[in-house]
Amino acid sequence: MLKEWVKAEKPENEEINLSLKEARTKLNGMQMAIKEKKLPVLVIFDGWGGAGKGSILGKVIKNLDPRFYKTETLSKPAEDELRRPFLYRYFVRIPEAGKFSFFDGSWMDEVTKARLQGNTDSRTYERQLTSIKRFERTLSDNGYLVVKFFFNISRQEQKKRLKELTESKSTAWRVSRWDIWQNKHYKECVDVYDDYLESTNQFIAPWYFIDSKNRKWAELQVTELLVKNIETALLNEGRRSVLLQNVFPLKKMPYLADISLDKKTDDAEYEKELSALQATLSDLHNRIYKKKIPVIIAYEGWDAAGKGGNIKRLTAALDPRGFEVVPVASPEPHEKNRHYLWRFWNRLPKDGHITIFDRTWYGRVMVERLEGFCSENDWMRAYNEINEFEKELHDWGAVIVKFWVQIDKDTQLARFNDRQNTPEKQWKITDEDWRNREKWDQYEVAVNDMIQKTSTEFAPWHILESNDKHHARIKALKTVIKAIEKKLEG
Amino acid sequence: MLKEWVKAEKPENEEINLSLKEARTKLNGMQMAIKEKKLPVLVIFDGWGGAGKGSILGKVIKNLDPRFYKTETLSKPAEDELRRPFLYRYFVRIPEAGKFSFFDGSWMDEVTKARLQGNTDSRTYERQLTSIKRFERTLSDNGYLVVKFFFNISRQEQKKRLKELTESKSTAWRVSRWDIWQNKHYKECVDVYDDYLESTNQFIAPWYFIDSKNRKWAELQVTELLVKNIETALLNEGRRSVLLQNVFPLKKMPYLADISLDKKTDDAEYEKELSALQATLSDLHNRIYKKKIPVIIAYEGWDAAGKGGNIKRLTAALDPRGFEVVPVASPEPHEKNRHYLWRFWNRLPKDGHITIFDRTWYGRVMVERLEGFCSENDWMRAYNEINEFEKELHDWGAVIVKFWVQIDKDTQLARFNDRQNTPEKQWKITDEDWRNREKWDQYEVAVNDMIQKTSTEFAPWHILESNDKHHARIKALKTVIKAIEKKLEG
Repeated sequence: MLKEWVKAEKPENEEINLSLKEARTKLNGMQMAIKEKKLPVLVIFDGWGGAGKGSILGKVIKNLDPRFYKTETLSKPAEDELRRPFLYRYFVRIPEAGKFSFFDGSWMDEVTKARLQGNTDSRTYERQLTSIKRFERTLSDNGYLVVKFFFNISRQEQKKRLKELTESKSTAWRVSRWDIWQNKHYKECVDVYDDYLESTNQFIAPWYFIDSKNRKWAELQVTELLVKNIETALLNEGRRSVLLQNVFPLKKMPYLADISLDKKTDDAEYEKELSALQATLSDLHNRIYKKKIPVIIAYEGWDAAGKGGNIKRLTAALDPRGFEVVPVASPEPHEKNRHYLWRFWNRLPKDGHITIFDRTWYGRVMVERLEGFCSENDWMRAYNEINEFEKELHDWGAVIVKFWVQIDKDTQLARFNDRQNTPEKQWKITDEDWRNREKWDQYEVAVNDMIQKTSTEFAPWHILESNDKHHARIKALKTVIKAIEKKLEG
Repeated sequence: MLKEWVKAEKPENEEINLSLKEARTKLNGMQMAIKEKKLPVLVIFDGWGGAGKGSILGKVIKNLDPRFYKTETLSKPAEDELRRPFLYRYFVRIPEAGKFSFFDGSWMDEVTKARLQGNTDSRTYERQLTSIKRFERTLSDNGYLVVKFFFNISRQEQKKRLKELTESKSTAWRVSRWDIWQNKHYKECVDVYDDYLESTNQFIAPWYFIDSKNRKWAELQVTELLVKNIETALLNEGRRSVLLQNVFPLKKMPYLADISLDKKTDDAEYEKELSALQATLSDLHNRIYKKKIPVIIAYEGWDAAGKGGNIKRLTAALDPRGFEVVPVASPEPHEKNRHYLWRFWNRLPKDGHITIFDRTWYGRVMVERLEGFCSENDWMRAYNEINEFEKELHDWGAVIVKFWVQIDKDTQLARFNDRQNTPEKQWKITDEDWRNREKWDQYEVAVNDMIQKTSTEFAPWHILESNDKHHARIKALKTVIKAIEKKLEG
């Protein structure tokens, strides 16, 4: 599309000045509406080196109140970021509701640079394109406005600018070796950029080309497009996004009512198996550390189902420097102000590490669904969004193990009463637990939906029958071991 | 994605039989819900020659009530279809609300075949991909379910099947030269298909690969996916689709209140100019006929603004074999049962012909908006949909001229009274005209929105100041002539 792009004619300077004044006033006046409507705005500045991205970004933000925006410069990923999934460093930087984030450079850089330098294969590239499309779409579906600019200049213009910058001592540092490489291989870059721009030109986040020959005009184009985009986004407030068709093959899973809970492991067998399995897991922990394989273990289950004790039997086998248990409660205000998966992206392990989530992102389709903490459309959309999220983790190379810890209603009552009646256990039982218990049947519907809709080939659910906690613990250990071994073999 | 596709494992025959029975029952049972919820379902069967598309389609529809579906075989475009825009023959075949349309072959065939045969350039190809993505998306936005299957078999399997078919007299006719070509150039086809599938794999209409090795299993995959897709689509009932960001550069246009209406053309000058301009247009009509350039002229304007008389001055210059005037009233029931642009797609001229629309698709953002004949989301989305529609016409090579015939409120009153008081004009004035007049101010808002949002570079609005009808007629002729001349030169 870069090749096909039909340039607009540059207006007279006087007209630019007038229109720019008007556009700046409009954009400035929109800040309060953005804040009130809690619209998060993500603006991406991509384009050629020397095209003036930085200086135009500077002009645009000069016009805004510093409380309403953040800028992010995304050059090379840091060491720590390289040990996370591809999208990690972008996802953790998404704006808060009601604010702008301006990205100087984006995921486009990373993907196209790797391609131009021959550091990627076509399979990885295609997968990254899919990831990017999903990322931008889920932001949009969750109410984000994503505006993408590509600053365009000709080869000659770029050459001229780089030369000018290099010749002055005060600006020479701004010319990178990459800029120079780009200019030498301009045509090759056009091919790669063109393919990328075409592939990621989504309806919900289209590309806008900015003719960057003249700085003031470029600023005008950017400002006017921001104004128009924000106007449309504000009209979209409160819309329900379409539920997408599932594209991930799903495993056939049982319904909770059909799960037999009489499986038992007797004490002697339990002790024997437990220590053997823990020894195995301990050994595997070393191996995944060396092989830099990340492991994500997700626990969900009924109150008093025995999640805590189960997790302990896993962690007992692990080196404390290589794992983390993340207890998940209701989100904090700064978390609520972002995409609901943001707080989980922020807590992903580094490669070679294990993170155990005690409750998870599945809160969206259970408690948030049942308590009305999100809209119907939000939780209905979430199954697909979560499958996509886990696909990212899988593509990154993670082992993903998801446990549903299952007990029956009577067992829960017995355990609740035991907690109530045992002074040292009383802290474990709250009024909320009793209230949740009253909604058992509604939760059962939600859990069945969840297990049916999110048991993908790459991240299926495993049921831990936990009327007998021994059985559940042994099964959890076996399942984790099997999953890691499979990964190490594969 | 074809190359990356991970095949599922074929289940045991017994399991296939059981699941198929269940899936068929489900699909069959969904027909009433589809009808009641007025869900239109478009199902596309694409894939390799010999992959069994036809026979599986036959099995799927055997399970459905013939009142609820239509099948369309889309092989080569007919002569008449070749003279319309690329998407024409697909758009006119979209299903009615509450019914299935099954397409044996689709726009994929046309596009990929042209590419494989070297009959297309990359620019046309990219443009067609964009058209296809817009087409599928606007269907989805307007409540259509679009399900796309690609039937996949290996080169060896295809070879075997084609041989078997050829060897039997009763089936030899089913093997086309194209099928044989495909098998010989299987790898080349994979590359082209892969690129196409990847590019058109949209969230709202993803591709499903059907492993077509075993017919019964293929039918099972298709039936189960249809069931799942319909389930999701039914959940989407009544959703508001997202308003998209405008991507078409717009012309600066005046607001109605700022248009000066005192332009006049006196009688003598009028007569002289009229016949000269008509002679020119008459000549141009011949030239566009020979050059096969289609011309679309769209009239909108206030009641009694003089549209009819204006159109007559155009048509007086035209050869009756080469033009058509399409008066647009409220849609018929069978038209209401389809995408609102369907009835206009159906009335497009052949290339070399002129169609004059007396009222147009802009009814969506005027009368339908103001009378509540569509939802707010529908008309707000329509600006973009209409720009995309006109872009299709432009890419096809059409000259597009859009007129807004403008008068002031007093002039309308005078003309209404004149009609009321002149027996032979009384048929031209109805109670509805008076009712519409009461809503003048609301219409003015809608018209301003329309003109501001749909004056693209390729299809801008032209204002005909029609307090003086002579002036308006001369200007209409001049505008049409200029547009055609520009096209003939370009």
